[in-house]
Amino acid sequence: MPKIEVCLSPALLHLYDFSNSIVVVIDIFRATSTMAAALHNGAKEIIPMDDVQKCIDAGLQTPNSITAGERDGKVAPGLQFGNSPTEYPRAFIEGKTLLLTTTNGTRLLHQTKDCKQIIIGSFLNLSAVCEYLVAQNADVLLACASWKDRYNLEDHLFAGAVIDTIGHQFDINCDSARAGKHLFREAKKDIYGFIQDSAHFLRLSAYGLQSDMEYCCKIDAHNVLPIYEDGRLVLG
Amino acid sequence: MPKIEVCLSPALLHLYDFSNSIVVVIDIFRATSTMAAALHNGAKEIIPMDDVQKCIDAGLQTPNSITAGERDGKVAPGLQFGNSPTEYPRAFIEGKTLLLTTTNGTRLLHQTKDCKQIIIGSFLNLSAVCEYLVAQNADVLLACASWKDRYNLEDHLFAGAVIDTIGHQFDINCDSARAGKHLFREAKKDIYGFIQDSAHFLRLSAYGLQSDMEYCCKIDAHNVLPIYEDGRLVLG
Repeated sequence: MPKIEVCLSPALLHLYDFSNSIVVVIDIFRATSTMAAALHNGAKEIIPMDDVQKCIDAGLQTPNSITAGERDGKVAPGLQFGNSPTEYPRAFIEGKTLLLTTTNGTRLLHQTKDCKQIIIGSFLNLSAVCEYLVAQNADVLLACASWKDRYNLEDHLFAGAVIDTIGHQFDINCDSARAGKHLFREAKKDIYGFIQDSAHFLRLSAYGLQSDMEYCCKIDAHNVLPIYEDGRLVLG
Repeated sequence: MPKIEVCLSPALLHLYDFSNSIVVVIDIFRATSTMAAALHNGAKEIIPMDDVQKCIDAGLQTPNSITAGERDGKVAPGLQFGNSPTEYPRAFIEGKTLLLTTTNGTRLLHQTKDCKQIIIGSFLNLSAVCEYLVAQNADVLLACASWKDRYNLEDHLFAGAVIDTIGHQFDINCDSARAGKHLFREAKKDIYGFIQDSAHFLRLSAYGLQSDMEYCCKIDAHNVLPIYEDGRLVLG
């Protein structure tokens, strides 16, 4: 059986050999949730970028594109839209290129690029991720983006949801995976309720983003499979 | 209120400012459990060392001392005793200096030395640790030794036990602390049963060390407070 592991922080990535693994990048609040939503609603592609100025420049050069990203809960100066999964309905995003700045998520995409394949995970596309991973019969690393390298409850909880769903089809000898499964089993009846006592919830609540976070907890609301290829995310 | 935080791996220590904190070093299987047991049974002091040869040399120079440490579940060549909390009864250890080699635990002691104070935590001395921390009215970092920087369920579980016991007397904005509390609340009825699905349990079970690990789960069996001072552990 292939193995499945969970890395709790980008600062721990060096402990894992993921060169032949499928890496699932997880940044629940809110980058990977927004990516799943935008692609489900018809975005042509998403180009994650780590820098606001690069994003502005790329926007000027990319036809039919929109620039997006936040700093401290607000649209970053110079960009057009924010980082909310509810901000990209089909009527708005269909056929467009989304140039999205994210800090933790984009950095993790770059850090894990030397792997078999990168896909994007969130509660919004949990089933698509699980079904894909089982079908590939390959080793898997569930990689939590965390917050400035600090352990994040919501990212671990999603990793635990994957373990709870498909862990029995993999070899597991990873305590991060076991702990995630325990946490998810406790939380699964009310993920949004559970996550309200977390650092990220408290931080983003101060910006009035509770409804965003509630949305990010909706299992399979945008059940597609974003795959990272050549610097862009497209539907798998 | 002072704050309390949990660091899940020595590789994440750089994220925490513990210069004015009490650091609780946690290495449940088995270094910090053995330390609590030996001091409770009357050891004069314990000198943690990271290297077998240094330990052998120190043993030759230290009156009334014993050298101890394991590699791969057996007494390391050149040392006299192992790293089991049951190996140091009063009749044997009383009044002696224990020169103990541990890999993860000793390294963590060195990494955290620039703090307010280091104490040693294990299930065997949970209450002593909690009572001491509450009385000091200082910031606290619960530092998990982990296994070669990999997240360990049993160390996190102990951190969670501390949070579950005294967390309400501290400011908590640390998801590692929150997750530990959830895990401990799930495990507390049967810690030994819970921990049997963990990487460390499986590794040490292969050496026949189940009874050691069962012993390490006995809350307050050696309820003393080991304090690290000038390179040695003594009773607080």
